[in-house]
Formats: sequence, structure tokens, C-alpha cells
Amino acid sequence: MARVVQKFGGSSLRDLSYIRRAAQIVARRWHSGDDVLVVVSAMGDRTDLLSSLALTAYKHSDDENAESDVLLSIGEQESASLMALSLQSLGLSARSFMGWQIPIETIGVHGKARVKRIGTSMLVDTLDHRGIAVCAGFQGLMVRGDRISTLGRGGSDTSAVLLAASIDAQLCEIFTDVEGVYTSDPRLVASARKLSSINYEEMLEIASLGGRVLETRAAAAAMRYKIPLHIRSTFSSNEGTEVGEGIMEERAVTALTHSESDAKIAVLGLDNQPGIASKIFGQLASNGISVDMIVQGMTQDEGKAHIAFTVLKTDISRACAALESIRESTPYQELRCDDNVIKLSLIGAGMNSSAGVAARMFTTLAEKGINIQIIATSEIKISVLISADYLELALRSLHGVFDLSNAVEDLKQ
Amino acid sequence: MARVVQKFGGSSLRDLSYIRRAAQIVARRWHSGDDVLVVVSAMGDRTDLLSSLALTAYKHSDDENAESDVLLSIGEQESASLMALSLQSLGLSARSFMGWQIPIETIGVHGKARVKRIGTSMLVDTLDHRGIAVCAGFQGLMVRGDRISTLGRGGSDTSAVLLAASIDAQLCEIFTDVEGVYTSDPRLVASARKLSSINYEEMLEIASLGGRVLETRAAAAAMRYKIPLHIRSTFSSNEGTEVGEGIMEERAVTALTHSESDAKIAVLGLDNQPGIASKIFGQLASNGISVDMIVQGMTQDEGKAHIAFTVLKTDISRACAALESIRESTPYQELRCDDNVIKLSLIGAGMNSSAGVAARMFTTLAEKGINIQIIATSEIKISVLISADYLELALRSLHGVFDLSNAVEDLKQ
Repeated sequence: MARVVQKFGGSSLRDLSYIRRAAQIVARRWHSGDDVLVVVSAMGDRTDLLSSLALTAYKHSDDENAESDVLLSIGEQESASLMALSLQSLGLSARSFMGWQIPIETIGVHGKARVKRIGTSMLVDTLDHRGIAVCAGFQGLMVRGDRISTLGRGGSDTSAVLLAASIDAQLCEIFTDVEGVYTSDPRLVASARKLSSINYEEMLEIASLGGRVLETRAAAAAMRYKIPLHIRSTFSSNEGTEVGEGIMEERAVTALTHSESDAKIAVLGLDNQPGIASKIFGQLASNGISVDMIVQGMTQDEGKAHIAFTVLKTDISRACAALESIRESTPYQELRCDDNVIKLSLIGAGMNSSAGVAARMFTTLAEKGINIQIIATSEIKISVLISADYLELALRSLHGVFDLSNAVEDLKQ
Repeated sequence: MARVVQKFGGSSLRDLSYIRRAAQIVARRWHSGDDVLVVVSAMGDRTDLLSSLALTAYKHSDDENAESDVLLSIGEQESASLMALSLQSLGLSARSFMGWQIPIETIGVHGKARVKRIGTSMLVDTLDHRGIAVCAGFQGLMVRGDRISTLGRGGSDTSAVLLAASIDAQLCEIFTDVEGVYTSDPRLVASARKLSSINYEEMLEIASLGGRVLETRAAAAAMRYKIPLHIRSTFSSNEGTEVGEGIMEERAVTALTHSESDAKIAVLGLDNQPGIASKIFGQLASNGISVDMIVQGMTQDEGKAHIAFTVLKTDISRACAALESIRESTPYQELRCDDNVIKLSLIGAGMNSSAGVAARMFTTLAEKGINIQIIATSEIKISVLISADYLELALRSLHGVFDLSNAVEDLKQ
């Protein structure tokens, strides 16, 4: 008998018939003897619809308007109450909890609030009486102002992991519309293979580098609180991907991800003087724009510096405006933007002890005539920025070279 | 400068364009210098849709399931946030308040909770800073259990009047899709005339006897707390009907209403012994069934008693089952149900000082060959139960006889 959190995403809750199917999964778990806390996203694409409704009501509202959160949060209120009713109709005792009821106390700004504290007494009381607690994901209560807040896109994953941590759950199951975490995107790489287990560090890199199966903050929270995850499909009973603390030494490369959310900005012909980078990135930071990959170089002819970096595509026009505004104090010759780029990443917990991964990656891409624009590395990943035109070619070549379809699996066993 | 509550019903908030039109009305009032608290119903027929969704999720749920209230309450959360956003887009400072935030504390049962206490500090603070408080109608917070509750059908009217009372508002405007309170239903009686003012007692009778313009509990609350009401149309700037404390002596009959919600049950051939009525009505009461009009008679031949009464059409099968179950201990010969009946009511604050209203009513109906099945009277109303077949004939005849199209108006001025 364990405490288990089961989280269902919007694609698993498209309409009432989907919710009832998910309720069957919850009921099976409960009947096995476990205590179950359910976390639900909004049904289908509800959040998108509500978000555009808010924008229609007030076109020039800023992103952090508390009223938008009031509207957005009804999506999860709807699915949580319908899940509770569906569980009741199966003869189980179930009740819904909104973010403000639990409470999931948040700080920061509306639309992307951060969880500060979670009240557990009502939840634990429900579970201890063999009731099923159905929690609305994505939403919380802003400590200051007593207002409904939301956690930003994919926030229900974060709700699930943090709720699991707060009630000392032994497992957090993430139910989604794919079978688990894959070595690469199965829609683009036919030989992509489902991973039966990965560790937290790998999950975090996969999530942040384009894997769409789990939100990055949720992966970080799982790692921090050591919550075992099981990412699996709502629509089959196959085992999915377990995420835990295992160390997989024999596996240099676990997964190959790609992200289409980045754009490249190049600032060309800067005076090459100390502090030039801090001026550029300081200006972007003070406008709230995050920079990811960076490369700095110098031209041979004039002693001018170049800086290139990536920002989110959604930030590109604000980034360019911010840089135009400092052109007088920080002169440069040209600003170039390119959003036809892709970030490819090789991820593996054993990468830093396995020589030559980077070299093999660069060689493979060079042989296919693919130019690498920026490189970024960490202990367990190598990312390269390339032209989007080569996405599939690069994915398939690298997937083959690193033999991902046949990687040794399940070293935990 | 006054404090004003403005309540908008679902038909005034059918979609976002309607909400923006309503926001314009609020803005005009605010710009005139008044402080405005807005109460909103759910958009259009949202509540009906959510209600049937809850029933689909859990067919055998009882009416007082707390989870249904969680689902139903999202309707007003949606309209309140969209109203606040629409007001903001007009440059005004506005924020929404849910029932649990205010809080509107309730007791009783889910689905038809009663308001016990309203917290006013946040509302008053908002108004005092010239902000517009947008309150979700229909919903509250159950004191016991910290759960979302709803006030039952038409509950937003009650929310509006009680909120007006709690903040000492000088006026509560009820915006709806008709121009005000009419002498009779304009869809059935072409000569029906809008009343420019009526008093609380009349409003209460009209509301409870079939007038669909204001909920009965709201009329009772307005009378109790002496909140001046103005019932008017969202879609025109015409004056509607004022409801206040005026006494209209010269007007014996103010309005003629009809209700189609009742059904008649006749219990025939009862032993005529003391306590027979208390057995019948005790049994119904213990099953939670309200009885309205009652007539008791005796047959000449056998010394048997007959009792006939009305219950809500929605209660009729439960009422019959309850009476079948006591047939052994309280024998009767026959149970007859008839739902093809209509309750017609003449209402007027001056009725009890004006002799002959009842006699004229009965004569008029007799002349048209309309049989009166049950009669019920109070100080300011006379109701009769007749066959539904004669609805329009009876309405038009009585409207003419009592000269309602030309009644003296506005005695308050």
C-alpha cells in the first residue's frame, strides 16, 4: 500500500468520455490498495480557448493580469469536478480541491506564479480515510492579495510533482498521450525507441531541450525532491518510462532531442573592448529576455567583435528593439535575426565519462554538409544550433550513429 | 454620489459582445460619480449546460452533491472575470470576487444554500478607492467544509440584493431582457402595461406567483432590508420598474400573473376522521415536498372526505409514491393527478381594502365558463387554479375587467 499521485494531461481529458476512462485507471489503482491523489489539467485545448478569450476581452492587458488567471483557472475547476463526479459514479469517495482550497500558496507574478508552500492537512485527511483527492492542476493562491494564480504553461506537471512531494508520495504517474520518453521524436525518427528508465538529470535535460512529455520545472522538482516518476500512456496499459536515481554508466547517449522554439540573433561589428558582452546581455536581462546559447568571435580584418546567441522566438522582436535602443552607447554595424534554426541535443548521464561523443556528433553533421552555428555543452548534454532545413537529416544520422535504437536498457534492473 | 449595485442576468451576458455592452452601462454609472458593485450571472444558458454535464458524469448523484456546485460555479467565475477584463479595457479599475473570496458564507445544503453572512471589507475597500467590484452571483462558501456552494436557480438575484444590503447600497439595479414588471405576461396579453413602480409586497407576490423577472428570495430580501430596486432592460435606456416602500391605495389590483409550475393531486374517498389532513400533509412534508393550494371537501353520499392540493410539477411522482406508501394506514379510494392546470393570481397592495375584487374575479371566470378548482388568498393576492386550456382566455378577460392597461400609475410621485 502506497501513496500515489496520478496526473492526467489535457489530451487524456478531451471530453467526458475521456475523463471516465481516466477515472477507471484511478479506480484500478485505488482498488489495488493504494491511496490516490489525482491531478488534472484542463480538458483538451480549454486553456488555449480561455487564454484567447481573455485577450479578446482586453487586448492590451499585460501578461500578468490577475483577472486572466481567474478565467484560465476555470478549465481545471471543470475537469476536477467532473473527475470527482466520475469517480463517485464508480462508487468511490472522491472530492475536488481547488488551488485556493488546498492551499497551493504561490509567489511571483500572475500567469507564471511559483509555488511557495502547499497545505497538506485536508489532502492527507482525505487519503487517510481512503478518499480520492482530485486536485486542480496549474492553479494556486497568490499569498499577497488572496487571488487565484496560475503556474504558466505545463503547470499541471509541476502541481503533480510538488503535491507528490508534499504528501510524501512513493510514486507520481504522469499520464499522457504518448507511451513514455523516446530516444528521439518518433514522428521524425522511425527507429526512435521508448526508454524504459532514465535518471532525473537526463529527464531534466530532455524536458528543457525540447522533449514535450514533461514540463522542465516538474522535472527539476522531481529531481530535487527525489520523486519517482512513471511517464506513460492513458490509452494503453504498457509500461512507460520510469524516472529515478539510477546511474547508467554504460549508456553514453540516452536521447536526442530537438527544439524549434529558439531564434538566433547576431550582433556584428562591435568595437572589441572589455565589457561589451555585459552591455549586450545586461540590456537583454533588464528587459526580462533570457539568452541561451552564446558564441563570441572576432573578425580578422578589422578587429571588430561579433556576438551571436539564441533567444525564444516569442522574444525576438522585443530583443531586437532592446538592442536597437542601445546602439548609440554600444555601437555595432549590423543586427541579424534568423528564426529558421533548430537546436539539437544529445543527452546522456554517462556522456562526460565517455570520450569522443562531441567529436562523433560534429563529424557526423559535417559529413552531411550541415553547418554548426553555435555549440553549448554541459556535463550530460551537447547542443548544437543548425539550420532548420536539416532537421530530419541530422536527427536520423545522429540517431543511427549513436545506435539509439539498440541502446542497452534498464540498467537499474 | 451613491453606492449602486448593478446585476446582469444571463440573457444580458450571452457572449463577450454582450458583456462589453453591459460593461458600458457600468462605466456610464461609474463616470456619473457613483461607486459601483456589479453582480453577474453565468453567460447565456451556461448553467443549464453545466448542470446537465454534471448529471451525465454521475447520473445517480443526489441534488445536494457538493461536486456539482464546484462545476456549476465556473459559469459565474467566467462571466465575472470577463466583465472585469472588459471594464479594464475601458480604462477602469475593476477586479472580480468569487463567493469564497468575499466571502459569502452559506449554510444549508449544496445546490440551494442559504446566505448567512457576507464579508464586506474587501468590497468596501475596492469601492472606496473608486474601483469596481465584480462579484460572481449564485455562489458562496459553505461555512462547514470550506466548499463552494450555490444558491439555487435565480440565485444571482439574491446575491445582488444581499450584497446591496451588506454594503448599504442606495440602489440595486436588476438588468434583464425585459423592460420591467408588467401587469401581465406581454407575450399572452397584448394590452399588458409596464408598471413604473410597485411596492415590495406586490413584488414578492408577483415573483412567487409566476412573474419571471425577479427571484422570490431576492424580492423577500429586498423587502426585509428595504433595498430600492430598479428592474430594467439591458438593451434600452428606458426607465424600468421601481420597487420600493410606496403605498398605492387607489390601485386595488396591480398585476395579474400566472404560473405553469404546479400540478394538482386529489386524494378521494378518505375516511372522514380527525387528523386525516395531518397524516396526508405530514407524509408529504417528511419527504421534503411543499404543498401550496389546498381544498378539503366531503361527499354527501358516503361521508367520505376528499382533499385536493397543488405541488410542483417536478415533485409529482415523488408525492404520489409517498401517498401510495401510506395507503394501508390511511386508506383512500383513489389518487388523481392532473398537471394540465394553471395558477392565476391577481395581486395588489390595495386589495384588502377594496371590496369585491374576489367576487368580480370569480364572476368573470364563471361567465367565460371557466371552472375554478382551488382558491387561495392572502391580504394582497387572490389565486385560482384552473384548467390550462383556458389560460389565455382567463388572462385577457381579467386584464380587461380590472382595467390593468389603464391603471393609475406612480402614486409615489
